[in-house]
Amino acid sequence: MHILWNDQIVEREEVKIDIEDRGYQYGDGLYEVVRVYNGHLYMLEEHLNRLWSGAEKIRMTLPFSREELILNLKKLVKIEGINEGKLYFQVTRGIDSPRNHALPDPEKVKGVLTANIIPYERPVKKMETGLTVAVVPDTRWLHCDIKSLSLLGNVMSLDDARRKGFDDAVLVRDDKVTEASAANFWVVKDGTLYTHPDGNLILSGITKMKILELARELNIPVKEEAVYEEELFTADECFVSGSLTEIVPVVKVNDHIVGTGRPGKITKQLTNAYIAAVDRVCGTSEN
Amino acid sequence: MHILWNDQIVEREEVKIDIEDRGYQYGDGLYEVVRVYNGHLYMLEEHLNRLWSGAEKIRMTLPFSREELILNLKKLVKIEGINEGKLYFQVTRGIDSPRNHALPDPEKVKGVLTANIIPYERPVKKMETGLTVAVVPDTRWLHCDIKSLSLLGNVMSLDDARRKGFDDAVLVRDDKVTEASAANFWVVKDGTLYTHPDGNLILSGITKMKILELARELNIPVKEEAVYEEELFTADECFVSGSLTEIVPVVKVNDHIVGTGRPGKITKQLTNAYIAAVDRVCGTSEN
Repeated sequence: MHILWNDQIVEREEVKIDIEDRGYQYGDGLYEVVRVYNGHLYMLEEHLNRLWSGAEKIRMTLPFSREELILNLKKLVKIEGINEGKLYFQVTRGIDSPRNHALPDPEKVKGVLTANIIPYERPVKKMETGLTVAVVPDTRWLHCDIKSLSLLGNVMSLDDARRKGFDDAVLVRDDKVTEASAANFWVVKDGTLYTHPDGNLILSGITKMKILELARELNIPVKEEAVYEEELFTADECFVSGSLTEIVPVVKVNDHIVGTGRPGKITKQLTNAYIAAVDRVCGTSEN
Repeated sequence: MHILWNDQIVEREEVKIDIEDRGYQYGDGLYEVVRVYNGHLYMLEEHLNRLWSGAEKIRMTLPFSREELILNLKKLVKIEGINEGKLYFQVTRGIDSPRNHALPDPEKVKGVLTANIIPYERPVKKMETGLTVAVVPDTRWLHCDIKSLSLLGNVMSLDDARRKGFDDAVLVRDDKVTEASAANFWVVKDGTLYTHPDGNLILSGITKMKILELARELNIPVKEEAVYEEELFTADECFVSGSLTEIVPVVKVNDHIVGTGRPGKITKQLTNAYIAAVDRVCGTSEN
């Protein structure tokens, strides 16, 4: 496996992360996951916009230009020869020694980029059978809009749900649904689509953005409003969305079956529209 | 510099952290900082208790026994020949490939330990002049009792304060003072010592524990109660505490001078008692 390590593509074995990399000691960094379809980096520009916006929020100087990063990510995809894949990249604030909470001078400490790509296929099975989710309190920090490496809150909330036998968590803060442990969460009620508005309590999903666009095209009424926890139990449909997940129905919340317990009408409509949108850009159906 | 890397002590250059170490991708790990006085690891047992308690909270299987860890940490201190130092160690959930939010099977994925020690002296100057702090909203997650590597919230709150020209942040959640960006926070009012009670909103400081013990010995009335933000501005004394910091007075909160603007009487009394307590255990005054 090759890794993009700063501005070089090397064998995985050659990469050496320093013990005083701030990513390792503070979770001080940002990441993105881009879905590669038919060799195309889907919605890359939107992912990069979010990366740059996150860097501004955490006052991090990115160690590359946008053009350099795009060039190197595309080079990595090509070298690995993966057409259907999951491209992961992260950038930390760099190696700061001795360890110190205070932000280092970006002139002296340069960020560290690592990226890899592995094969990945659309989760067709999950799209058919759907997921079960458990309600878990959202105890994460108040900057969930930043796609940072300080992810222990997300990790533990997923595990809270899994230990109870569910596939994922639906997070609730102040009685309101925020998102899943690593995906946006959607509810359909009486033909209207609801999801939490962007802001500091959720990640502004790239797939969320696309779904909102598709819903408008399909004339599905949308409200970017948080739903209350109790509304989960009377929802007609629920689903989660993410760059890898795309759109996956949620068929059970705690012990309550959602709707018919099968993927709902609007969920299917959006899934088909999403797949078609990917196809238009990446030409996936030609393969 | 030598590093304790799992169960081996090696040169720093030999340590190679993997890109898929969960510490690097999720901030999924724990750490401790132990002050070494006169070659002694001060309050090591209490630090280890907290590490084991944190591991339980995040359901991490530590890859060493308590005895092994103590032995290896002491070996590291000896090899480096540092008498007055700052011993840092962290343990992550290990290398999990491919990257996956779900907790790996601890039988297959072993934690990664790294430790180093560097020289460190008591911050005598700060103890005399004191610190200035800015009130910063506490936006961290709701498990601040876990000394985890997902520290971006702490890092950014410190930077929020520093950018305004202050030395540190005093964090406030729901109008109440929780702690500093990486230290416990104390207020003296009318002869009584106040600090936030242990629980999920603050780290249970080892030095805090010792100060509570010393205050009782000195017959200083103590209330483990959160003070309101506004009470900061009428406090007689304020100080912060931590294993490295020990006890450092806070002389300014935002634009308000605390008390006389000089270290207060109870702060000094506790500082002297703390230094004496260290001396009793580590024999520091003999050097």
